[in-house]
Parts: sequence; structure tokens; C-alpha cells
Amino acid sequence: MTVNLVAVIGGAIADPEEYSFARELGHHLADEGYTIVCGGGTGIMEAVCRGACEVGGNTIGILPGVNPSDANEYVETVLVTGMGTSRNRIISLSGRVVVAVGGMYGTLSEIAFALQAGRPVCAMGTWNVIDGVTPVNSPQEALEFVRENFRGIDAEHN
Amino acid sequence: MTVNLVAVIGGAIADPEEYSFARELGHHLADEGYTIVCGGGTGIMEAVCRGACEVGGNTIGILPGVNPSDANEYVETVLVTGMGTSRNRIISLSGRVVVAVGGMYGTLSEIAFALQAGRPVCAMGTWNVIDGVTPVNSPQEALEFVRENFRGIDAEHN
Amino acid sequence: MTVNLVAVIGGAIADPEEYSFARELGHHLADEGYTIVCGGGTGIMEAVCRGACEVGGNTIGILPGVNPSDANEYVETVLVTGMGTSRNRIISLSGRVVVAVGGMYGTLSEIAFALQAGRPVCAMGTWNVIDGVTPVNSPQEALEFVRENFRGIDAEHN
Amino acid sequence: MTVNLVAVIGGAIADPEEYSFARELGHHLADEGYTIVCGGGTGIMEAVCRGACEVGGNTIGILPGVNPSDANEYVETVLVTGMGTSRNRIISLSGRVVVAVGGMYGTLSEIAFALQAGRPVCAMGTWNVIDGVTPVNSPQEALEFVRENFRGIDAEHN
Repeated sequence: MTVNLVAVIGGAIADPEEYSFARELGHHLADEGYTIVCGGGTGIMEAVCRGACEVGGNTIGILPGVNPSDANEYVETVLVTGMGTSRNRIISLSGRVVVAVGGMYGTLSEIAFALQAGRPVCAMGTWNVIDGVTPVNSPQEALEFVRENFRGIDAEHN
Repeated sequence: MTVNLVAVIGGAIADPEEYSFARELGHHLADEGYTIVCGGGTGIMEAVCRGACEVGGNTIGILPGVNPSDANEYVETVLVTGMGTSRNRIISLSGRVVVAVGGMYGTLSEIAFALQAGRPVCAMGTWNVIDGVTPVNSPQEALEFVRENFRGIDAEHN
Repeated sequence: MTVNLVAVIGGAIADPEEYSFARELGHHLADEGYTIVCGGGTGIMEAVCRGACEVGGNTIGILPGVNPSDANEYVETVLVTGMGTSRNRIISLSGRVVVAVGGMYGTLSEIAFALQAGRPVCAMGTWNVIDGVTPVNSPQEALEFVRENFRGIDAEHN
Repeated sequence: MTVNLVAVIGGAIADPEEYSFARELGHHLADEGYTIVCGGGTGIMEAVCRGACEVGGNTIGILPGVNPSDANEYVETVLVTGMGTSRNRIISLSGRVVVAVGGMYGTLSEIAFALQAGRPVCAMGTWNVIDGVTPVNSPQEALEFVRENFRGIDAEHN
């Protein structure tokens, strides 16, 4: 009965190219019925939630603070942790598949935790050189990565 | 755009009276459009999710472990934290209102964190004697407590 | 080789009676070679560390924030968690025995986690009515509680 | 009054070269009066604590589990978190300077959190290519990195 969660991670500050990438990725993931889990903030987190909302998708934001109103306006379900960036691991573990778009050290911590837990990770930009990460160059490639890995997950459960 | 989250907390082992209470509470909360957030496990967590599912409601489980398949079968959205019962605070903070049904020390930690953060808390059984907790004796009373407190929250935001 | 840790918990604001209790407790515990672990802040946390320091004892503070300089001046070893009061569980688990002095909901969360993990807990004031907590009325009684429980721990390991 | 903490991070499995590096680093750091904070486990964590103990130094282990007896035998002060590898951030934040020796994704998460918090980080092996990390090739070089950065920290406080 569990919904299909995809973690989308990236910087709280995003350049226009990254923002567009994440927004379009949000469209694609929502169109295919995936629910997005992210950090609930600005930048890439806003972009991917915005894209998903524009096509009627579902979004979950897991915030570092205690105030639900800190979430970006496109987060449908706001969870607050009050534990700062220690919450990064929860995002990585909760996504069955993880997509990174740009990002700095917070994103790197999320990639590290995802790989440690055996989650499939793809990345556009910054961290696509990390061993174990699959580089992607377009939202379509990222979507294809998500699809393929969910086929593996579904096969395992049947 | 945020969904209205109610945290329902209680023991992983529930006696029949507590289980019925939580299941009926799940019916009522879902009927009124609240989304339930809980620890995702057995006992009270299962009962309240089951009740909500039976009337088509939404449920979120925030698990202590890393394995999504540890969630009870009535959890719609499974988040995994890998941080043991340190995740209790996340449940308490994420609910705008908190309802406790029975429970032992884990539940007590959740009540403590909820009260520390200023969340309204009502309880049936065990911990209804804690200063700051409103005792309730039926699922209807618990529902009324939730409704009243959301009226306060909504008023604050208008 | 592990040092003997006693967790001392209580409010960041302490009245003079509580402050004196915690400071004298710090004397006693340090005199007997216990190391104190606490939240590293003001009030009871300061008092117990101060008492321990006055007789050359060791103190550890586990802070909610990220800045080591937020510790009170009597904390010898400062650990920073950046996870707010989610760090409370670490204090409770790290003490082999737990002593509560007054305190509000943060202290209650620590008592709950300590009891959940099977740690022996005694309390002066506020929370000494919680089922499973041993009430104590003087620093000497608290010290005797600590001693007795460490005898049990030592016996288990021999 | 705060002791000078250096975080030493690395894999739970270490090859002989890494183990020797960490053990010798432990000697050097302890000789100069630094206290070592680490994850308290096997591999690099054991090696650095062992080296420090051999020359009478102080060591702190911050464990992922709840059982103090899981620490390696060279950990003097055992803290238990019960939060799995979410505890990694605490290690990184608590060290004023961070030294990585080899390691896999857990170590990468620690490096990421250290850099995010502005902690100086040097690394031997695996992750020395991460932007912001200073590569070191010998325990002496790592010691020199620690010394230099503490001079900066001390200058800031005078």
C-alpha cells in the first residue's frame, strides 16, 4: 500500500539551469505516480515540488527546523524534525531511489547516506563523479534511472 | 497547501479496548480530512492507521529502522529514519495536535516533546495525569479536542 | 577502561534549592570518581558541572546546538550535536545511572528515554511521581542510589 | 576549560597501511594533548584509540547503538546514541579539526557534515579528492594540519 517515494536532493540555492532541471523532473515524476520526498526548503527543493504540484502530484518535505511554515509553498505534507541537517539521512533512506541535482556539502551527505544504505543514486552536476553515483544529463535520463530501479524493486517484491 | 497532520501515539502492544479506541479514532479523523502521522508499527499505530484506511483516509508512518517493509500494512506513506526511538520527537513535532492512547515510556517521551514544543496533547489512559495533558475518555472526545485545537491554529493563520 | 558515566538532568532554569542540590551532587559524584554527562547548558547542568569541577572532577556536556562556546564554563569536554533536544536521548542512554533534579518537559523526555532503555532513574522534585522513578530527597540519597546501581552493573560484568 | 577535540574518522574495516597510519596518528595527537573523538568501533576507530592509549591519551567513542560494551577496548569515554549512523554528524561537529583515514560512504557523510559546518578537514586516501579536503600522506602531515588549524582557533579566542 506504500506510495512510491523518490528522494530529490540538491542545494537551497539553485542556478536557473538547475532550477529548470528540477522543476521538469518534478513534472515527470508526478506524471508517473511517484511521490517526491525532499528537504522542504528553497532552491532545488522548491523547484521539484513546484513541478510536481503543477501536474497534481504529491510532495513531502522533511524540514530541519520545528516550524511547518518554513516549508516552501509547494510542499503538500510538511514534517518537521527539529534536528537540523541531521535530518538529511531520513530523506536519503526514505527515497527508494535518489536523484541529486547540483548541491554542495549537505547534498553530499545525503548521497553518502543513500549509497551507504544501498539506495540507487543518480546525479546531475556537482557530485556525479562520486564512485557509485550514475551521472545523468537531463530530466528524462533521471526519470529513466528512477523507472529502471523501481522495476528492480517491484520485481524483488513479486 | 499543507495537509492537516494529527499525531497519534501509543504502545506497540495494545489491549483490545485501546485497539478499538485507536481504530475508531482513525475513522473519525480520516472522515474529517485529517492525515494521521504515527510511528508506523504495531498496536496503537496499526489500529489508528487501520481505522483511517477503512474509510479511505491518509496515513504516514515514521519508522525507527531502515526497512520500509517493517511498517504495518495500513501505512500509506512510509518514511524510514534509521535512528531508533530518537525518531519519536519527529512524530510529536509533525502533528499539529497530538493524541495519546495508552502506551509506556516511548509514548511518554513523545508527550514530553509535544508539550515542550507547545503542541496540544490529549490522552486516553496511562499518561493522562501528566501536567499539561487533557484527559479524554472516548474517540469522540479526542476528535473534539483535535477539532477545537485546529480551529485555534486556523484562526492564527487568518 | 570505560569511565563511569552518571547522567544528571534537569532544567536550564533552576531555583536556588535545586541549584544547591545539583552542585552538592556534583561534589559527591566527582569525589567518588564518577564522570558527569549532562546537556552542557545553564541551570542544573551548570550547577552539577560546577560542583564536580570544584573538587577536580570530570564533566561532559552534550549540546543541542553546533557551537562549543555555548557550553557552561564548567563543562570540560564539549560535544555538539546540532540536533536540538533530539540530543536528550543520547544523554539518557550514555549515563549508566540517571539523576533528575527538578526540570520540565525536556527532563521528562530524558526520564522517559532512560526508563525505556532500562537505566535506573532517581529524581528530586518535579518528576519523582513517574512510575519507575525512585524519589530522592537529598544529594546524599541520590549518591547512594548511584552507588547501589553501579554495584549491580559491576557485579554483572564480573 | 574545554579539551581540544580532534575527530578521527575512517572505515570499520582498515587495511594494514591505514591501521598503522591511524595508530601512529593516535600517538602523535595524544602526545600533543589532543583528545580524540571517533565512532568508537573497529578498524580506523580502534587503531587511533589504541595509538592514543599507548601513550596515555584520552579517547571518546560516540557509538551508533545503545550498548556501551560495543565500543573497542581503547575507548576511554563511551557515549551511546542509539541512532545508527545518524550519529556521524555529531562526530564531525564535535571535532574542531577532522582527519579522515581511508573509509567508505559513512566516512564521506562525516566529511560532508564537517565541511558544511566549516570544520577544517584533511584526508589520507579514499576521499582526499573532495573539494575542500586537504590531502595528507603521513601521520606527521596530518598532525601538522591539526596543529596549524588549532593555532587559528586559539588565535580567534584571544
